[in-house]
Amino acid sequence: MQAYDELGKNAANFVPLSPVSFLDRTADIYPNRDAVIYEDRRYSWTAVRERCRRLASVLNQRGIGKNDTVSVLLHNTPEMFECHFGVPMAGAVLNTINTRLDADTIAYIIDHGESRLFIVDRELSPVLDAALAICQTQPEIIVVDDTAADAQPELGRPHLDYEAFIAAGDPGFSETLIEDEWQAMALNYTSGTTGRPKGVVYHHRGAYLMAMGTVASWALPLHPSYLYTVPMFHCNGWGHAWTMTLMAGTIICLRSFSPEKFFELAGEHNITHFGGAPIIMNMLASAPDELKPKFDHTVKALTAGAPPPASVLEAMARMNYEIMHVYGLTETYGHVLQAAPQEAWSDKPISEQAELNARQGVIFTNLEGVEVIGDDGAPVPHDGESMGEIMLRGNVVMKGYLKDPVETEKAFEQGWFKSGDLGVIYPDGYIQLKDRAKDIIISGGENISSVEVENTLYKHPAVDVAAVVAMPHDKWGEVPCAFVETVEGIDVTEEELIEFCAQNMARFKRPKKIVFGELPKTATGKIQKKVLRERAVGEG
Amino acid sequence: MQAYDELGKNAANFVPLSPVSFLDRTADIYPNRDAVIYEDRRYSWTAVRERCRRLASVLNQRGIGKNDTVSVLLHNTPEMFECHFGVPMAGAVLNTINTRLDADTIAYIIDHGESRLFIVDRELSPVLDAALAICQTQPEIIVVDDTAADAQPELGRPHLDYEAFIAAGDPGFSETLIEDEWQAMALNYTSGTTGRPKGVVYHHRGAYLMAMGTVASWALPLHPSYLYTVPMFHCNGWGHAWTMTLMAGTIICLRSFSPEKFFELAGEHNITHFGGAPIIMNMLASAPDELKPKFDHTVKALTAGAPPPASVLEAMARMNYEIMHVYGLTETYGHVLQAAPQEAWSDKPISEQAELNARQGVIFTNLEGVEVIGDDGAPVPHDGESMGEIMLRGNVVMKGYLKDPVETEKAFEQGWFKSGDLGVIYPDGYIQLKDRAKDIIISGGENISSVEVENTLYKHPAVDVAAVVAMPHDKWGEVPCAFVETVEGIDVTEEELIEFCAQNMARFKRPKKIVFGELPKTATGKIQKKVLRERAVGEG
Repeated sequence: MQAYDELGKNAANFVPLSPVSFLDRTADIYPNRDAVIYEDRRYSWTAVRERCRRLASVLNQRGIGKNDTVSVLLHNTPEMFECHFGVPMAGAVLNTINTRLDADTIAYIIDHGESRLFIVDRELSPVLDAALAICQTQPEIIVVDDTAADAQPELGRPHLDYEAFIAAGDPGFSETLIEDEWQAMALNYTSGTTGRPKGVVYHHRGAYLMAMGTVASWALPLHPSYLYTVPMFHCNGWGHAWTMTLMAGTIICLRSFSPEKFFELAGEHNITHFGGAPIIMNMLASAPDELKPKFDHTVKALTAGAPPPASVLEAMARMNYEIMHVYGLTETYGHVLQAAPQEAWSDKPISEQAELNARQGVIFTNLEGVEVIGDDGAPVPHDGESMGEIMLRGNVVMKGYLKDPVETEKAFEQGWFKSGDLGVIYPDGYIQLKDRAKDIIISGGENISSVEVENTLYKHPAVDVAAVVAMPHDKWGEVPCAFVETVEGIDVTEEELIEFCAQNMARFKRPKKIVFGELPKTATGKIQKKVLRERAVGEG
Repeated sequence: MQAYDELGKNAANFVPLSPVSFLDRTADIYPNRDAVIYEDRRYSWTAVRERCRRLASVLNQRGIGKNDTVSVLLHNTPEMFECHFGVPMAGAVLNTINTRLDADTIAYIIDHGESRLFIVDRELSPVLDAALAICQTQPEIIVVDDTAADAQPELGRPHLDYEAFIAAGDPGFSETLIEDEWQAMALNYTSGTTGRPKGVVYHHRGAYLMAMGTVASWALPLHPSYLYTVPMFHCNGWGHAWTMTLMAGTIICLRSFSPEKFFELAGEHNITHFGGAPIIMNMLASAPDELKPKFDHTVKALTAGAPPPASVLEAMARMNYEIMHVYGLTETYGHVLQAAPQEAWSDKPISEQAELNARQGVIFTNLEGVEVIGDDGAPVPHDGESMGEIMLRGNVVMKGYLKDPVETEKAFEQGWFKSGDLGVIYPDGYIQLKDRAKDIIISGGENISSVEVENTLYKHPAVDVAAVVAMPHDKWGEVPCAFVETVEGIDVTEEELIEFCAQNMARFKRPKKIVFGELPKTATGKIQKKVLRERAVGEG
């Protein structure tokens, strides 16, 4: 019946989906509840909304709006939280930058993303200073002065103070600047297989659905007390700034993680939820018992980046922490697969439970589909053995890579986003990651491109051939391990090469091990990385 | 930066939102969990999905798909649940019909909605038979035979048995027939101010977001045990068929409500959640204590249609049932406002708590905005006294009224959907309904059009002038009360007029009270309904 199609959209029955709505609703309903807590600062939802509105308003005063990039280099402080609402509220695009990146990469990001404005924690300003010295784009600089910082270096460039900056804004600002839910909202650079990072673009619809899906699939209660251990520069902190606002939670900010600080805050604020890489869980589990606060409730946590070892899961369970293993990529706004626990698992021995939980699992409700596709282009059988590439589909798959139509096109294939990860699917439908098709090493939850490390090694005069693969590591999950053939007649030590890498790229990306000797190659001269990965296991 | 807009939609990063996705995900992850339980029948999620797919597949075999209407006249049995997935899965539109309607209205709906197929519970087939005798459209008839029915009347028309019908379908059917999230998905007729009901059209996007918003705003846990007391013909049972599937709940079906049956099922299935009009809560609270199962957990319920009285809230609280008062309309897919409890309320005396909870409240996360607009077109002050019309905005506002551009246009005004209800807004932002602009009486959760009752009264030769208003009623919340001026010289009794109404429209719509005498009128001769409403309070 044609008549069904005659009913159209109007401003009352169609509103672009955006997580910005969550802030308005929560501030309206719970105006005086604690929203964001950091050190001796405590903001209610009314105060947070006012600060976000001021930020949006000053951005707009400067003509920064739709499709304009605002970059930030910040720790998990209240300002970082505010940027997650204030920038999209202005219609602009939030570009959170990994605080451990080197000046050269940051310069690339500023130029590539065409930053209009840059908000930086004073402690991190030296690397920004160095980046601005080499990039073309010169954004306006806003400095966050945090008294809890270890250092307060001087910034030798004109800049405004963050508090003075937002003070000029309108706390009642309520323009609707989100015209389209498909509008860009966030820009997150991720190490790819090539040397330069790719700019992953998120939209409002995806961020809204990411939050809703997290609520449903993690079964979040009202008013969670959430300790923000996941860096907000990492996939926008898995979208939890938006998710916790949706559930009117209290967000406890954390400038830098240590088990001591974690447990101090956890006890003080009676936390219920947090997230972190397995290394975080490991550090918590192995901390002295006297640090650990006693809770009457179960603390729930998501962990991603690598499967949590049985020992960690067991130790956390003894502490009454319920850990769910999740999987995702920067390209999917964070977690999209979950080792959703089945009731029958709880009867099994802990080691078997750990094995089941170590799988990447099944889709969150924010994803629409997952499949493991074999070399023949068909889904692999659900036998836990046949390998294929993990393919994802849903509304939390990125718009694409900014200014990179070639990589964007390569990322999508026949209705799927290609994760680049290889895995198997078990008879119960749970997926397990087995290997990475892309040359990515995940160390302490951060992506390191093996190609970038190789390119850095090649800059050293002693390096003839270099290949970098992941080496298993107790603390970091994985670390880069380099296999190197040296140029005849030039001597170099392992220490020299590692230090050279540390100086010529972000320090955390340097190889932790260099193995000298001839590299295994195929008949056509291609380096056999698979063989090297096996060797690296022995080196770890 | 223009480059942001160059990243387009594709099949991997844009999937139309639809609650049909929930069934697939839940059946994939929890294939063997109890999904739907009814009497001695028990279906796993695998079985439910297979049955829904069979239904979708046979509909498609008949050429029933996008924009085709499938009408059903069913109680809350598994077949009714299956229709909520099978019909939309086929791309078609589910038209659930109130089981208490009269043949004439059902005939109107069949013709107006152009039903292609009609699924009826055998017990309800006589009224369908009567309707089909007077309507032009003649849909194919499918009969559900329920051994738990009180009566099994013969249907004197060609028909198929539901089980045989779906047996011909493909249990592996998985075509994607939802092309557009704005595609019509459900058609719900609602009594309006005019005599004929209006066909409210829902789309997939709205149904998806209704479910997600309910999860967030009711903070639903995983695996709720849900007793389906709200008729699924009523705003699709508040969307809970979709919501409970999203959370992989167990849905306990209930053919007809009685406190005995409710408590029997509640205890047997250890229920955690349900919903119902205050009359349901009242009947439960006042049931004998020996009927009531003891739970270790709090049972959560939503109640809508009228504010729950303090006595009921108090009695339910003593039973450890947590009731949340919600508000919505057929035009908003069900509940969109909630008396969201504030932590500070629990310290107040129960009578004050009841007053706070009796308000219609604040928006669910599925709504984007609410406002109370005064006669001057501006929002009223938040003083709890200034009256205005309650206006709603969001993605769970209907597409519009089917084939009724005039009423559709009237429903929307300057970016708002006009609820037709009058209310105030308190300083804390909570809304309270004070009166209805539309002449609607809500009796036991069902809408009754006062105009329809008046029109029926006018058909009686003794009636000269008639006006019908709501009269408060302990059990039903409200009932119709008629004020009548009789034609001089023709005698009629109250009983005669009530019985005349019962015979000439749906029985439940008949006035419960007739008051004879001259009606108050304005200088221009308009009946003063406001005065009559006040008088009706005295009659109640």
